[in-house]
Amino acid sequence: MQGLMMDRPLLTTEIFKHALRTYRGTEIVTRMVEGPIHRYTVADAGERVAKLANALVDLGVKHGDRVGVIGWNTHRQFEMYFAVGGIGAVLHTVNPRLGPQNAAYVINHAEDDWLFYDATFAPLVNAIAPALTTVKGRFVLTDEAHLGDAGGDGVGTYEELIADKPTTFNWPDFDENDAVAMCYTSGTTGNPKGVVYSHRALVIQTFASLLPSALALKEGETLLPVVPMFHVNAWNTPYSCMMAGVKQVFPGPRLDGEGLYELLEGEKVDFSAGVPTVWLGLLQYLQKTGKKLTHLRKGLSGGSALPEAIIRGFAEHGVEIQQGWGMTEMSPLGTVNTLPPHLAELSLDDSMPYRLKAGRAMPYVDMRIVSPDGHILPHDGTSDGHLQVRGPWIVGSYYKPESETLTADGWFDTGDVATIDADGFLEITDRAKDVIKTGGEWVSSIDIENAAILHPDVANAAVIGVHHPKWQERPLLIVVRCDGSDVAPDVLTDFLKQRLDKIAIPDAIEFVDELPLGATGKVLKTELRKKFAGYELPA
Amino acid sequence: MQGLMMDRPLLTTEIFKHALRTYRGTEIVTRMVEGPIHRYTVADAGERVAKLANALVDLGVKHGDRVGVIGWNTHRQFEMYFAVGGIGAVLHTVNPRLGPQNAAYVINHAEDDWLFYDATFAPLVNAIAPALTTVKGRFVLTDEAHLGDAGGDGVGTYEELIADKPTTFNWPDFDENDAVAMCYTSGTTGNPKGVVYSHRALVIQTFASLLPSALALKEGETLLPVVPMFHVNAWNTPYSCMMAGVKQVFPGPRLDGEGLYELLEGEKVDFSAGVPTVWLGLLQYLQKTGKKLTHLRKGLSGGSALPEAIIRGFAEHGVEIQQGWGMTEMSPLGTVNTLPPHLAELSLDDSMPYRLKAGRAMPYVDMRIVSPDGHILPHDGTSDGHLQVRGPWIVGSYYKPESETLTADGWFDTGDVATIDADGFLEITDRAKDVIKTGGEWVSSIDIENAAILHPDVANAAVIGVHHPKWQERPLLIVVRCDGSDVAPDVLTDFLKQRLDKIAIPDAIEFVDELPLGATGKVLKTELRKKFAGYELPA
Repeated sequence: MQGLMMDRPLLTTEIFKHALRTYRGTEIVTRMVEGPIHRYTVADAGERVAKLANALVDLGVKHGDRVGVIGWNTHRQFEMYFAVGGIGAVLHTVNPRLGPQNAAYVINHAEDDWLFYDATFAPLVNAIAPALTTVKGRFVLTDEAHLGDAGGDGVGTYEELIADKPTTFNWPDFDENDAVAMCYTSGTTGNPKGVVYSHRALVIQTFASLLPSALALKEGETLLPVVPMFHVNAWNTPYSCMMAGVKQVFPGPRLDGEGLYELLEGEKVDFSAGVPTVWLGLLQYLQKTGKKLTHLRKGLSGGSALPEAIIRGFAEHGVEIQQGWGMTEMSPLGTVNTLPPHLAELSLDDSMPYRLKAGRAMPYVDMRIVSPDGHILPHDGTSDGHLQVRGPWIVGSYYKPESETLTADGWFDTGDVATIDADGFLEITDRAKDVIKTGGEWVSSIDIENAAILHPDVANAAVIGVHHPKWQERPLLIVVRCDGSDVAPDVLTDFLKQRLDKIAIPDAIEFVDELPLGATGKVLKTELRKKFAGYELPA
Repeated sequence: MQGLMMDRPLLTTEIFKHALRTYRGTEIVTRMVEGPIHRYTVADAGERVAKLANALVDLGVKHGDRVGVIGWNTHRQFEMYFAVGGIGAVLHTVNPRLGPQNAAYVINHAEDDWLFYDATFAPLVNAIAPALTTVKGRFVLTDEAHLGDAGGDGVGTYEELIADKPTTFNWPDFDENDAVAMCYTSGTTGNPKGVVYSHRALVIQTFASLLPSALALKEGETLLPVVPMFHVNAWNTPYSCMMAGVKQVFPGPRLDGEGLYELLEGEKVDFSAGVPTVWLGLLQYLQKTGKKLTHLRKGLSGGSALPEAIIRGFAEHGVEIQQGWGMTEMSPLGTVNTLPPHLAELSLDDSMPYRLKAGRAMPYVDMRIVSPDGHILPHDGTSDGHLQVRGPWIVGSYYKPESETLTADGWFDTGDVATIDADGFLEITDRAKDVIKTGGEWVSSIDIENAAILHPDVANAAVIGVHHPKWQERPLLIVVRCDGSDVAPDVLTDFLKQRLDKIAIPDAIEFVDELPLGATGKVLKTELRKKFAGYELPA
């Protein structure tokens, strides 16, 4: 028996309309690529989104066409989210850190018709322009006065494009399963793989993201997304903020500690979101300058495991750094680690084991742990295996995939190794490919890294497995020392012995000036493995 | 271009599964119809829901079959919500206040196969049993020991039915547009009309209900739903609580001030929900006994306009009574009046004009105001007209309808007259059929009632229009005086003159001992119109 409710689609357009009828005066603040602070309201944004929608239609952009964008977090990229999606086209957010070859690959693979980008990325775009096979025209996200040498033949500006367009648009209805956005994963091997988000998936996730157990953002609060709009829609925050009436502060290109600190304080930001390396950078800035965060209340960290040192460092500023876990393939939210009341009221020390977990699954995200030989393992907090997921905002197929995206029974294998306990707490043990297989046992590279980074002389750390004649693999710890430190390997080894099982103590420690970072700020272990290929462990 | 996300249905089953994996220990407390307090956890409920699902399948209940229930808010009816919906059958919640004729009508119209009911309603069911054309069997929501004279030929008990069944069930996937529940509106004219809720509609509404701008219920909190489970799924709260990990306290048959007070205090309830008559009853109990509410923080009021006196009365106990607006046809939530920060921080007096409005529309609830001649009116806070709505949890068609449910362009006419202001605040001026049309102008019966009830001698009030030779209609105010009061009509008229426009001052005031209430606790103006038919206004 069918339900007899209205057949109304879950389009992201409705989030935009909801904000316009409810939160007209809510501010949106941008540190522009051109330098100054730009400030306007949701009502202003509404008019510019309509202008852009009219401009895109005039350009000939049709339902389902792809529009590419390579940009910082700014009000202009924000406008593109709602204008491109609103007309039924697909916004392909391109990660500039992919490098020229991959950037050209993804733009061609997605068959982008138009390309928008910040002036910062004009050199990248100019370099790959001859290789782009589908792009009909390019627009720099600025005005004529600031175009400078970012222009060129057939290159327009965003402001000129929308200047004379009407400030209203008759937003169409269409199927909620239609695509609204695309994002390619920056895989460490093979070509990047495209994830195509439907309106439905992002809308359901937006609702879920605002649950009290997730971001719980509310009207009157302010969010600064450090996580880039070019990567998984800035963790969906533009949609979440518009649904909830939250002021957004876009940091533009200034993601350094000082730049972020100025905005966090000046705009009275309540909530921020970013990867651990960003949090670490901000923490080091605070420690170096002795400055205090006086307004920030909470920060969401995701993308890789959150080191304990970051939680403790921010706790001294009264800021709770909360871990989340997700993937490009999950739109991206899988868990947000909001502690239940009986754990939240514990001391920082007592609650730390739970804070270091990824958290509990959001509603409608099914998770299972599968052993290497294919058995479903219990949720007992100790059985670890491959983490597989299923749900309405999880990828069903990559775009033009080269192989099967899902398991035979329809689950997505995350590539993570994890445990889940009886209360639903997920703990990511390691990336499946980063686990160190030693003497028939698995050792987590993340556990060793998190222990190492607790040492006051360690600025950052990464662990890879290297060949061992007897044990198959053993851990090598690669450390970036803090400025001015000359801490010795045996000091660090002694430190680790107090914190780790014997099997996890690295057989060697190497020092480097910096760790190679991938397109989303994660440490590139593939690069480290190349660098330390053939490394000989001490006997 | 289609999105490429997983095709996973939004089933209410997933809410249940989410609670079981995340909030196992959360309590569910019931004041049983048998008298004692029953107390168990979500994990316990999970086992009993599985037992009931197995029992229903063994009975032969198939996907899409209707199962009727006439019951108080108890853990047993709660279990039916998830077991019946989880197997893909449809729970038809029957309002016992419909009266025998309508109860038989709706059970036959819905074609219920099985009927479950509390012992309280055995006389009603026994009386209508011969008229029921589709019911194959009946179960009283109790155990053998407490069946008493509620039993009879072919009547079983709930506890016996589920006693020996397995505590696990393999919950099936099916189309999210399939029906999960039915509820008939208690229309004042014609036959009751059936609304068939889909899983999709209730799931999306559940997400929306938990927004910070709506109920914002969170883990660790406690809700007591006074609003009955037999009416629009207790405003969806069983689903909302299970998604958020909120302790539920079911009041069973004791909805009087004392009964509610005991549970609110004893179970440390944070949040409650009910119609204004329930709030009024509790307030009068508090005033009579001098008792204080020490824990309750917030109450949601809906179903009819919330009188200012109730807001003020509870504010003295530190309780914020918040208005919502919805309908059976809207699953039921349309608005929840959560004030934005700049209004919430005002004094009670200064914020009162906003507290008396219905609030702002939830995301995905489209609203429009239509003039009697069919023009769409502006959202300017003054243009009033017929309120029409559209959205994914709004009725598309009644069950086996006798006429068109929607307008020609696909909107549902709510039967309310309303204004919407530029910030999205909805104000229900009146029910379209209750508006008093006087000399070419409309006067709101609700405005007069709300003004009258502010007088300390007025316990309750209702206004109807009566024929006037010159003005077509004029208002008649019908008042229930407080115990012991003998306040005179001219005193009340003077009181109203300070608060209302001249055109709204009633031409006459009549006193009655009580007002006739309908099946959902609303004043039955049709009864008042009958009682005062031919009423002659003073010259």
